[in-house]
Formats: sequence, C-alpha cells, structure tokens
Amino acid sequence: MTRTTFLGLGAMGGALAMAAVDADRPIVVWNRTPHRAQRLGERGAVVAGSVEEAVAGDGVIVACLLDHRSVRGVLDPVAARLSGRTLVNLTTTTPNQARDLATWAGVHGIDYLDGAVMAVPAMIGGPGSTLLYSGSAPAFEKHRTLLELWGESSYLGIDAGLASLYDLAILSGMYTMFAGFTHGAAMVGSAGVPATEFATRAAPFLAAMTGSLAGTAAAIDARNYAGEGQQSLEFTQVALDTIVQASIDQGVSVEVLRPVRDLVHRQVAAGHGTAGTDRIFEEMRSTR
Amino acid sequence: MTRTTFLGLGAMGGALAMAAVDADRPIVVWNRTPHRAQRLGERGAVVAGSVEEAVAGDGVIVACLLDHRSVRGVLDPVAARLSGRTLVNLTTTTPNQARDLATWAGVHGIDYLDGAVMAVPAMIGGPGSTLLYSGSAPAFEKHRTLLELWGESSYLGIDAGLASLYDLAILSGMYTMFAGFTHGAAMVGSAGVPATEFATRAAPFLAAMTGSLAGTAAAIDARNYAGEGQQSLEFTQVALDTIVQASIDQGVSVEVLRPVRDLVHRQVAAGHGTAGTDRIFEEMRSTR
Repeated sequence: MTRTTFLGLGAMGGALAMAAVDADRPIVVWNRTPHRAQRLGERGAVVAGSVEEAVAGDGVIVACLLDHRSVRGVLDPVAARLSGRTLVNLTTTTPNQARDLATWAGVHGIDYLDGAVMAVPAMIGGPGSTLLYSGSAPAFEKHRTLLELWGESSYLGIDAGLASLYDLAILSGMYTMFAGFTHGAAMVGSAGVPATEFATRAAPFLAAMTGSLAGTAAAIDARNYAGEGQQSLEFTQVALDTIVQASIDQGVSVEVLRPVRDLVHRQVAAGHGTAGTDRIFEEMRSTR
Repeated sequence: MTRTTFLGLGAMGGALAMAAVDADRPIVVWNRTPHRAQRLGERGAVVAGSVEEAVAGDGVIVACLLDHRSVRGVLDPVAARLSGRTLVNLTTTTPNQARDLATWAGVHGIDYLDGAVMAVPAMIGGPGSTLLYSGSAPAFEKHRTLLELWGESSYLGIDAGLASLYDLAILSGMYTMFAGFTHGAAMVGSAGVPATEFATRAAPFLAAMTGSLAGTAAAIDARNYAGEGQQSLEFTQVALDTIVQASIDQGVSVEVLRPVRDLVHRQVAAGHGTAGTDRIFEEMRSTR
C-alpha cells in the first residue's frame, strides 16, 4: 500500500499528518526530535527512525519543516530517492526560496508543488482552512484528494513562488492588524479597561472594516485616489497624529503606529492631502 | 421650535447633520467655508452665517470640527451663550483634549458629552454604525433620540476621555491593518497580481482572523502567554523574517512590517521564544 510521507511534525506538520490519519490514509512520519511522532504512532502512523526510512516507499512526500534551509538539509541527501515522485512543500519560505526549491526539484526529476497554509494548526481540516498552491499543475490535480483533507485548496499558477508570495502578503495584513490590536489593548489598558472588554468592540469593528478593502484595492488597481467616499489623507493624518499623541499621553509605545503615520505625512507633504488615504500604496517602495 | 445646532460640515459633520434632516429634525448648521452647507440648506436646514447665529437658540450643540484647537477656537467666543445647554462633541481629539474640553465646559456651565464615531461618513444612520460616548450621563440619556439617528450608541463612563481613548485604540488596529493590507497588495502587485484579486482572498481571511482577538485579549488580561494553541514567538519570528525578506526581494518597502518584526525579535531575545505571540503586548512601552 502506498504510504504518504510526512517530514516535520511541528504544530502545523503534526496537524497535517493527523488529518491524513483521521481519513484512514496510510502514512509514514519523521521528525528530527522523535517524541513529536508519538501520538501519530499511537493512531497508526508508521514512525520512521530516519529520513531515508521515511522516503523509502513511492508515495507523495509532504514537507513542513522549519524553513527553506531545513528543506534542503533534510532532502538533499535523499534527492535521488524522490525522482519521479511528488514533493508537496508546505514549509514557510520566501517566494524566491520556493522558486529555488522548484529548480532543485526539477534537477532531480521531482514534481514540485509549493503550498502555503492560511490557517492555524487547530483549523486544519475544519471550516475556514484555506491552502494556496503553485508550481506543478499536474501534481496539484493528482493529489487533490490529499490536499483537500486539510482545507479548501486553490492553485494559483506555475510560478512556484506565487503561493508563498500570496500567503506572505496576506499575513502582512494579519500581523500588522494583530500588532495594532495589541497596541490598542495597551491604550485602553492604561485607563483600566480589560483587553477582553476592548476585544468585544474592536474585533467586530475590524471585521466590518475588512469590507472596505475591496474599495481600497480597486483604487490601487486604477491608481485613482480621487474617488467619492475615500477618506482624505489630510483627515487620516489628523487621526494618526491624534492616536500617536494619545498613545504618548497614556504611556504606550508608538513603535508600530509611527511608521503608518509617517507614510501618510509624506503623502500629504508631497501635495496629496485631498487625495484618498488608499494612496499610501504609493509609499510602498523598496527604498525604505 | 428648538433647533439642533451643527458646527462643522466636513464629510462626517455633514453626514451627521443630514441624518437629522432626514429624520425631519429642525437644525441650524454652520461651517467655516459656507459652500458645504448648501445641500443641507436645500433640504431645509437653516444655514447660519456665523457661529453666534448658529448657537442663538436653546437646543443641543453638535460639534464635529477639525481638531481640539478648532473646538476651542469656535466655541470660546460664544461660551456664555451655551450655559445650561448640552454640547455633544464628535470632533476627533485625544483623551486628554476631551478631558480639557469637559473641564472648560464645566467652567461655563455646559453639559459636556464627548463622542467618537466608529464609522465612515457613508455609514452614518445605517447598519454597522456605532458611536461611543463618555462624560455627562444625563446628557447621554436626555439626547438619546438624536444620538441614535446616527448609529448604535454606547455610554462608557463619566471620564470624558474614555470614548476617545476607546475609539483611538480601535482605530490603531484599523490603520495598521489597512497599512498591512496595502503592503500585501504591493507584494503581490510585484508579481503582476491585481490588488482586487488579492482582496478577494485577503479580506475574508483578515475578517476570520479577527475571531482570534478574543483569545489574544484573554491572554493579555491573564498575563498568561503559555496557553495551548498560542502561536509561539519563535514561529512568528521566522514568519516575519520571511515576510521582510520576501518584501525586500520583491522591491517592497518594509517600513510598516519591520517594527512588528523588531518587537517579536526583542521578545525572543529576552528568552520568551516558546511563549505565545500575544506576549508582544509586553513590548507596548512608552520608551519607544
């Protein structure tokens, strides 16, 4: 029986492997520190003592390791064994690193599919779990049954870097929102308001505000920042100056907010004060 | 008939006044640049030629001006006329500025209610529009019918600065999310992906992720960052390093992302790598 190989059993890798076990799929697992394989072993997974042993069969290989360097470190010694098989790499890498792995795979005759998981481990296999893929279209089609055990799966294109790029771009929004929320919790906390009380108002508001992002995106694509209903940069400048001042007054760091304010200030200083705030897109240059 | 006075007819002030007109409430409006009053005048509002004229009656005064300085500048000369009446101030100010205005109002015998509008002008009076108030509880109760023309209205407490503090704290999350989304649009844009296509995936994901903020808040309130299911700081460090590197590779500025990465790095350097990422709350100090 063909076994699927799982390399890397961190929180995410473990959840991916567990979803396969839950679907009664035969799997073989390996992790650098073996204790992580224990629960999977109890559930029927074959626990390999080495990478060589884990890839000894002829099934698809799923890698979810620490980083790009780990993928090369783990797979380079067994590359010849992977020829003619599919490697699904769900390790977080940069787009260029994914492209590098696709090239490496091509050299070794490995069909390479790069994936990005847009979910936390607890969400895997449940509602709301989404995974993005790019690279080999045949590999995506051939292994769809496996991939859809983990969540809704989308194929973005042949450029192996695309899934990672898309994922990291979305995470940029998530981590900045998260930092901004935490900043806000510190602001109200300075007046004795519990973060949990703050969250009951802040979370639904932020969820509702994601509804405006389609409009922002349309303005960006059209490079038209003069649309009706866009909040002006000078209005936003006052708002951000107010937040920064209030944060300082309340003893909260402005480390996260200051750069956002600065790019609005630069746009206003460049004469765009009456344009829509979506115009901060024009500040997203590599010079800073 | 008692008229409600509206001072300031920018995008927000105009929307507030229009909601009152739509409810057939008699109003008198004033704006520094008179042309903004035209549409309201056509709909039946009395257009005052001066602040003195606008506050000549005995109704509630609604101020929505540029900033704290404008409020004092516009109202100081007519303060004696406002004695015994209610001032609802919806101008964006810092908490300390709202407290200053409450003190100023108290000196002049004015009942002061400070408000913060958690909506864009187009949302006023419609679903999802929420307004926060603090300061005079009697003023909030007395004028609830007016306030609820604009949206769901909540009274937070007697400290006049509380509505502003709460509002600015929530906006911290919004502006950082917005900047992060724009950063992400620049990342995928570097590979030719339209921002509108990006938004179709990013917006629902960010909306879903607001569901995790209650858990973050609970960790913050408990100062317990060791909970099951929290994403570790060292995992987040790798993710943010990857986003920063990918941004640089793709020619996108890391101005907005770098400070978020930096505070995660400092937490890891301080020995908290295995703790949950919610621990970045501890970095929200006024020293930066």
